[in-house]
Amino acid sequence: MASDQLSSTFAALADPTRRAILARLTSGEASVTELAEPFDMSLPAVTKHLKVLQRAGLISQSREAQWRPCRLRASPMREAAEWMEPYRQHWEQRFDRLDDYLRVATGKPVLRTRRKK
Amino acid sequence: MASDQLSSTFAALADPTRRAILARLTSGEASVTELAEPFDMSLPAVTKHLKVLQRAGLISQSREAQWRPCRLRASPMREAAEWMEPYRQHWEQRFDRLDDYLRVATGKPVLRTRRKK
Repeated sequence: MASDQLSSTFAALADPTRRAILARLTSGEASVTELAEPFDMSLPAVTKHLKVLQRAGLISQSREAQWRPCRLRASPMREAAEWMEPYRQHWEQRFDRLDDYLRVATGKPVLRTRRKK
Repeated sequence: MASDQLSSTFAALADPTRRAILARLTSGEASVTELAEPFDMSLPAVTKHLKVLQRAGLISQSREAQWRPCRLRASPMREAAEWMEPYRQHWEQRFDRLDDYLRVATGKPVLRTRRKK
């Protein structure tokens, strides 16, 4: 399986349950039981997903508190987003070309406001 | 395997060869032979990677030209980058807190310039 950090990050993100767990953790740390709550899934199944996220470094689990809360770790996601930056330029250029075309065709910049959001 | 678009995108990105193929395509369309060139890999192995990228919608292959060039498709990568946006806020907040701490400790904003790039 994936041995480099970027591959581990993307592989960990390639699952809707794991992405939902990460989304929950943006609003603060949570115990395994709290994280399992919204899913129609056994605790061991959720724990398995947490292990994938942990191995990829996307979350960490405290060893101090008795309820061992999980929390987000920022750096792997940051690295993944940085890897995507050149592609952002690619799709924005495409958008610019479409905008230029529509401006010529309609006489106004149809897409500018959407692109700037 | 992954049935939703985001999961397919991330699963396709979870491999260094596939990411290198995408990186090559940012500088323009290329034939399968051209894409295979930099890799110590058989043509069928490269074709297999291209199929994963194609199924995820990250590339498309022209049926018109005889050399059937591959090109990047922007929208799945864009969707993935948009999914990451809330996490960007998360790590920037963490960076701000670290910056605030260092400013108090050293008397100057050590990290600001790096964060703004």
